[in-house]
Amino acid sequence: MALATRSPGAAILSVDISSASIAAARERVRAAGVTNVTFQQADLYAVPFAPRSFDHVFVCFVLEHLPRPSEALAALRGVIRPSGTITVIEGDHGSTYFHPESPYARRAIQCLIDLQARAGGDSLIGRSLYPLMTAAGFNRVDVSPRMVYVDSSRPQLVEGFTRRTFTAMVEAVGTHAVADGLIDGENWARGIRDLYRTAEPDGTFCYTFFKAVARVGGAMP
Amino acid sequence: MALATRSPGAAILSVDISSASIAAARERVRAAGVTNVTFQQADLYAVPFAPRSFDHVFVCFVLEHLPRPSEALAALRGVIRPSGTITVIEGDHGSTYFHPESPYARRAIQCLIDLQARAGGDSLIGRSLYPLMTAAGFNRVDVSPRMVYVDSSRPQLVEGFTRRTFTAMVEAVGTHAVADGLIDGENWARGIRDLYRTAEPDGTFCYTFFKAVARVGGAMP
Repeated sequence: MALATRSPGAAILSVDISSASIAAARERVRAAGVTNVTFQQADLYAVPFAPRSFDHVFVCFVLEHLPRPSEALAALRGVIRPSGTITVIEGDHGSTYFHPESPYARRAIQCLIDLQARAGGDSLIGRSLYPLMTAAGFNRVDVSPRMVYVDSSRPQLVEGFTRRTFTAMVEAVGTHAVADGLIDGENWARGIRDLYRTAEPDGTFCYTFFKAVARVGGAMP
Repeated sequence: MALATRSPGAAILSVDISSASIAAARERVRAAGVTNVTFQQADLYAVPFAPRSFDHVFVCFVLEHLPRPSEALAALRGVIRPSGTITVIEGDHGSTYFHPESPYARRAIQCLIDLQARAGGDSLIGRSLYPLMTAAGFNRVDVSPRMVYVDSSRPQLVEGFTRRTFTAMVEAVGTHAVADGLIDGENWARGIRDLYRTAEPDGTFCYTFFKAVARVGGAMP
């Protein structure tokens, strides 16, 4: 939605492997009256598009879920024009730290990292975008970290990021983590409590997203 | 030197608790022909200056070494004019992460953190500048992280930061860490090797400094 509304002149083809997600996205775009987006169900490892047919590919919070992110990047590279570019944005759960420090909170976060690894993903992928994209054949890879720093002078971030985004995301895997035997219920509860503790007036919270842009061809722009 | 040469109109009083450090700094300033700096040996917990006599106090990589940083900040606050300001810059060794990941490298860094804690310091202090300065009575505390991100597209940072600053700093405490029984020589060597590994072409390295500025009085500027 952000890309489509901010670039009304762009013709956007939006891809997902899940038909349910495609249906939900299509409905959202329709309801908002956005007309420059079409949808197609596709597998990133074998994108069904003509070679060198796109000006730009935008990938956000996708590679972290893939067992073979380099292979997906190489497939995407093949459908971008020689003069085209790619933008990749991913998080890195290992970039998380906070005050007050808590081994319980760290352990709860580690459960999320471990569950994502068991599912074939890599929630620490942000820090490795540079070697991944270079290995996939992209040129002039430029990675810029986007650090989110939160203290109580920024109440919207305390609520919107520390509480409702990051801690809520960790909290959501609690049942799964306990059922899988990664942690017991008591330690889990303490970890979540200590994460919410960092949203108190004397707490701080840090997390970093990574944005990478790169070119298919090596020539100067 | 940076402050003195960039603010030639400022009269700077430079303080250290060590007379040897004062002598070294005095010689360096003299040799560079800088004339707007004077020196005084002093204890930050009991600064021997008139109350409300300074326009600005600049503290860099100092609080991390102090057992009672809040007490030092409160003492410094007392010598700043009501309209005055303070700048504090500190690192945070817990903000370190890298690719490839290595438990040995993490353990070597933890030795540095533990040694600093045993010496009464806190090498994770960057993330807690906001509560520390607020508790010390400063107003309008504004903390901004300064993240250093390194990959091989930035060779000067690979050499100047990953190798010669951070890894060299960790490496320097090796004899001490092994002698104190924090780690054995073999694990230490592997940790250092894995830190240097992050400086290879497919490696990345992240570290964050924190800069805080604040006012003594609460009024708008």
